[in-house]
Amino acid sequence: MKVRVDVTLKPGVLDPQGEAVRHALGALGFDGVEGVRQGKVIELELATDDAALAEEQARQMADKLLANTVIENFSVTVL
Amino acid sequence: MKVRVDVTLKPGVLDPQGEAVRHALGALGFDGVEGVRQGKVIELELATDDAALAEEQARQMADKLLANTVIENFSVTVL
Repeated sequence: MKVRVDVTLKPGVLDPQGEAVRHALGALGFDGVEGVRQGKVIELELATDDAALAEEQARQMADKLLANTVIENFSVTVL
Repeated sequence: MKVRVDVTLKPGVLDPQGEAVRHALGALGFDGVEGVRQGKVIELELATDDAALAEEQARQMADKLLANTVIENFSVTVL
């Protein structure tokens, strides 16, 4: 079962990587870029065929390892 | 206008980051993880109100800067 975990910085948390991208886009001549936030996606291939169990497992993995819940939010989608 | 760019490694390209996550999940006691691939998401806030233009701009940005199209695929979604 494929599960996708999206990890994004919480609103208000500084995103230096996103800022660097914004500056680089400006330097390349792209105007009108008002903000850039960068996050990550983790696609998990889980052995179980039970969608509810897969989602629960992925949620625990995100909570324990994939996301830093002090500064990041995550969402889990079964594909 | 908010646009989301998803960048993922092409199939077949080695993903050491994903492998590291897989090992770490195993070490934490999560069984049944058969594969992990890690990608990134870039959320752009663009000045334009034209969805088609925003998508086209984001596509150019991804092609020139956000993705390494030799080893990565990207997809653009207007939010």
